[in-house]
Amino acid sequence: MEDLSRRLKEAAQRAEAVGLQALLISPGPDLRYVAGYEAVPLERLTCLVVPAVGEPTLVVPALERAAALESGAGRAGVTIAPWRETEDPYAVVASLLSGVTRVGVDEHMTARQVIRLRDAMPGVRQELASPALGPLRMRKSPSEIASLAAAGAAIDRVHEQVAGLLRPGRTEREVGRDIAELIIGEGHARVDFVIVASGPNAASPHHEVSERRLQPGDSIVVDIGGTMPDGYCSDETRTYALGDPDPEFLAAYAVLQRAQAAASGAVRPGITCEDLDATARAVLVEAGLGDLFIHRLGHGIGLDTHEEPYIVEGNAMPLETGMVFSIEPGFYVDGRFGARIEDIVACGEDAAIVLNHRPRELVVVA
Amino acid sequence: MEDLSRRLKEAAQRAEAVGLQALLISPGPDLRYVAGYEAVPLERLTCLVVPAVGEPTLVVPALERAAALESGAGRAGVTIAPWRETEDPYAVVASLLSGVTRVGVDEHMTARQVIRLRDAMPGVRQELASPALGPLRMRKSPSEIASLAAAGAAIDRVHEQVAGLLRPGRTEREVGRDIAELIIGEGHARVDFVIVASGPNAASPHHEVSERRLQPGDSIVVDIGGTMPDGYCSDETRTYALGDPDPEFLAAYAVLQRAQAAASGAVRPGITCEDLDATARAVLVEAGLGDLFIHRLGHGIGLDTHEEPYIVEGNAMPLETGMVFSIEPGFYVDGRFGARIEDIVACGEDAAIVLNHRPRELVVVA
Repeated sequence: MEDLSRRLKEAAQRAEAVGLQALLISPGPDLRYVAGYEAVPLERLTCLVVPAVGEPTLVVPALERAAALESGAGRAGVTIAPWRETEDPYAVVASLLSGVTRVGVDEHMTARQVIRLRDAMPGVRQELASPALGPLRMRKSPSEIASLAAAGAAIDRVHEQVAGLLRPGRTEREVGRDIAELIIGEGHARVDFVIVASGPNAASPHHEVSERRLQPGDSIVVDIGGTMPDGYCSDETRTYALGDPDPEFLAAYAVLQRAQAAASGAVRPGITCEDLDATARAVLVEAGLGDLFIHRLGHGIGLDTHEEPYIVEGNAMPLETGMVFSIEPGFYVDGRFGARIEDIVACGEDAAIVLNHRPRELVVVA
Repeated sequence: MEDLSRRLKEAAQRAEAVGLQALLISPGPDLRYVAGYEAVPLERLTCLVVPAVGEPTLVVPALERAAALESGAGRAGVTIAPWRETEDPYAVVASLLSGVTRVGVDEHMTARQVIRLRDAMPGVRQELASPALGPLRMRKSPSEIASLAAAGAAIDRVHEQVAGLLRPGRTEREVGRDIAELIIGEGHARVDFVIVASGPNAASPHHEVSERRLQPGDSIVVDIGGTMPDGYCSDETRTYALGDPDPEFLAAYAVLQRAQAAASGAVRPGITCEDLDATARAVLVEAGLGDLFIHRLGHGIGLDTHEEPYIVEGNAMPLETGMVFSIEPGFYVDGRFGARIEDIVACGEDAAIVLNHRPRELVVVA
């Protein structure tokens, strides 16, 4: 159990430091982080108002009052302000912010609520709350790293069973459905994404599933993740092959594996996000495959599947102990094939702490 | 297969009719509806720009280009504009909107993107796109109603198996995990929510699951739903009891069942949303239970679990043939118990077309 009162206090302090007089936090990872409240993100407004100076208030639909009182915020004594079905919740939030001219809205808030809050508070400038909340959430505590390790182990157990699902004639969608059941069966509370990209479909990094049937000779990218009951996310990619793959593919895969290992080996406090990206990219470039690696190396992960830090050219942020992110180089050839290898790693005191443990070799299904 | 070109044209016409010069549509149900594109809603900007006058453009991350070309929009010939990892996608969108002063943003767009688009287009007023898109999506075509009927049948098959999962000593979370597996197993592509609210937990309408163990005498609200592979959602609530329930609970349940049936029987074109809400509420009020029904009667459902029309006091919109929504009265007694009965119904030519078929009686598990 994290100390929510401390997190709330830090959020308020950081808000003040970046010139925001209040944060408006929506259901989702930020609310879970600062208030221990796993609210359903529906169209009814739930909003934690955190003034830079003063006490926070959790505005909730009346029918969520009991759940809010049970949440971390409720138990920590945060004021719960319920609104009834026929009231205007945006006016309730506005009434808590008199004198405020600049607020930070949760980056997960929907436009529906952003625009209505704007209209309820004429003269208040909306900015993103991320500069206050991102730096807090990006540096994981030891218990958060343990949660992410548990998520990593759960998705490892799913990948362990994937080879058994791949047979010529099955559709990507059928395989994807089996994987979704395994994601739940192995301990996740929610399936977040299931990518089964076979043959030429693997040339699209975010292809999900289709009616395409697996064929002998296919290589298959399986990129899957879910959310554990405590809110932390998993995300792991392995590439499989049905029988003997194209020799050109195999040669590229060997390079990819070296690129992934090079980046994993380069993780340490102080290296910048863009230098880590460049470490993997250099291996592919040297082998003449640089143009086929069409995306960034990775993304942070925690209560969100994608969060800071982004491991991408142009991001000069140095890594710090406790940051957790993916290392996922890939190569993509339109109309032919694709491959990707992805692990989640934490930046330790002097090296990466790797949170996924399935073998990184191409898994050839006989 | 719906006619996407027609939907895109109607969206543009409705935008113009409500004074918006363009719509900016994000990954999610609206994009799926007008563009047949099931994009992953990640932090990288994907945005369909639909000018009121002129041709639409789908702005996508370069690594989604192949998926976008494969989508309904791509196949319908919509221009795909890919941006590369180191480009600014917000500037790309802005460049498509020169001369525009008023845009409608998708209500599902995240604040992260709303605020960045605002900053990339100074002088452009953002409003919600909903007044243009909501009325389109709210009136379902026959093939959409067939999709919702299939979703209703799938969640019926899950409820058929729920009684077998309820035993004293099991936790709500354990039961919830089994139900999540069934939701996938019975044909959904995604689990959207699983509420297993037992004993006093049922007094909170949106309680999800907890470590509470089921006990003899508990009543248990099970409210579950998922998204089918074609994007349409299910949502069905039944109430169960472990052994003999409290006589007071039984008496209230009988009234609740009459209230639900009264509303279902009152559905027809022309009745207003608030009058339908009042129909159910009157039955509970007459029995002295009005104060225990603390939420609206229902919500529209389609590619979103919650969408227009909302069946709530204050909504004077008359129902039309083709609208699909939930009818879900409930009663809630803090610290003691709760119950809810929910069906999805379509407004037919002269009566409701009910899309869930499990018995509405209290299911007593011996």
